[in-house]
Amino acid sequence: MRLCPPLPYTVTDTDLTTQAEQLLHFIRDEIPLARAMDVCLHACDTERLSLAVPLPPNANDKGCAFGGSLVSLMTLAGWALVELTLRRHGEDCDVYVADSSVRYLEPVWGDFHAEARAIEQDAWMPFLDTLAVRGRARIELSCQVPGPDGAPAATLVARFVAKRRS
Amino acid sequence: MRLCPPLPYTVTDTDLTTQAEQLLHFIRDEIPLARAMDVCLHACDTERLSLAVPLPPNANDKGCAFGGSLVSLMTLAGWALVELTLRRHGEDCDVYVADSSVRYLEPVWGDFHAEARAIEQDAWMPFLDTLAVRGRARIELSCQVPGPDGAPAATLVARFVAKRRS
Repeated sequence: MRLCPPLPYTVTDTDLTTQAEQLLHFIRDEIPLARAMDVCLHACDTERLSLAVPLPPNANDKGCAFGGSLVSLMTLAGWALVELTLRRHGEDCDVYVADSSVRYLEPVWGDFHAEARAIEQDAWMPFLDTLAVRGRARIELSCQVPGPDGAPAATLVARFVAKRRS
Repeated sequence: MRLCPPLPYTVTDTDLTTQAEQLLHFIRDEIPLARAMDVCLHACDTERLSLAVPLPPNANDKGCAFGGSLVSLMTLAGWALVELTLRRHGEDCDVYVADSSVRYLEPVWGDFHAEARAIEQDAWMPFLDTLAVRGRARIELSCQVPGPDGAPAATLVARFVAKRRS
């Protein structure tokens, strides 16, 4: 697994990084389009997960990022954050995206990454509690692709659903 | 260019079909992810355009359609309908998606297609008129991936912007 240069936030939990890398192996093995996009782990901590791609396999006819790649990477970063958090809490779930709102704000002319986090700061415990009680829960995440100046070039707000397998 | 089995609506305009096939060649040549998805023309008439993909390169870890492929195909069908309509009216524009709302309603377990059309029935003439006057115009499209029973398995509503190159 190729590791992209990390984001400038500190990852001190080596177990977390190892688990995130394992998840990325899984994603690349199981989702052909993620492999075609050349998705790799950019960075993660307990609240955020970021995935990166090179531009060439994700470019459009104008030479900037293809809208499908932008929305796919943001959706995948959100999915991965939910999946990783569940695995770390010993939960075996099917996780899927229910709906999303996407804004394409600026063209992206180079390699890019998408960072996902929960919209509400304390959303994870209620999400896990609901899952424990009902076997099913949903959480709303915010994802963005930063542009070169750090302002968002694309944003996504999405609801993800987790459903226990057993 | 592989042509998928056509949709059950009548295409009587061979020029239109030829132009749509040329556009699909362009898409596959210029957008690597569209080639990785194995996007092909499914059907088109003057109001609708439909693109199809096989499931295997667009599957997720559960063996059904990857959310990124669903949203990418719907976005691409919308983009292609705008691009094709502009080319047929002699317009040379950059076309890009500005924003979208996506709903994932049912898992898709086989090959799938996405059909795009304008939300308002008479939207194209005002769109082209605005483009003629201002050199820039936007149009709202509705796209959907039908499930096996014909009910939508995924839907997208998106605004596309066209901007004259010259």
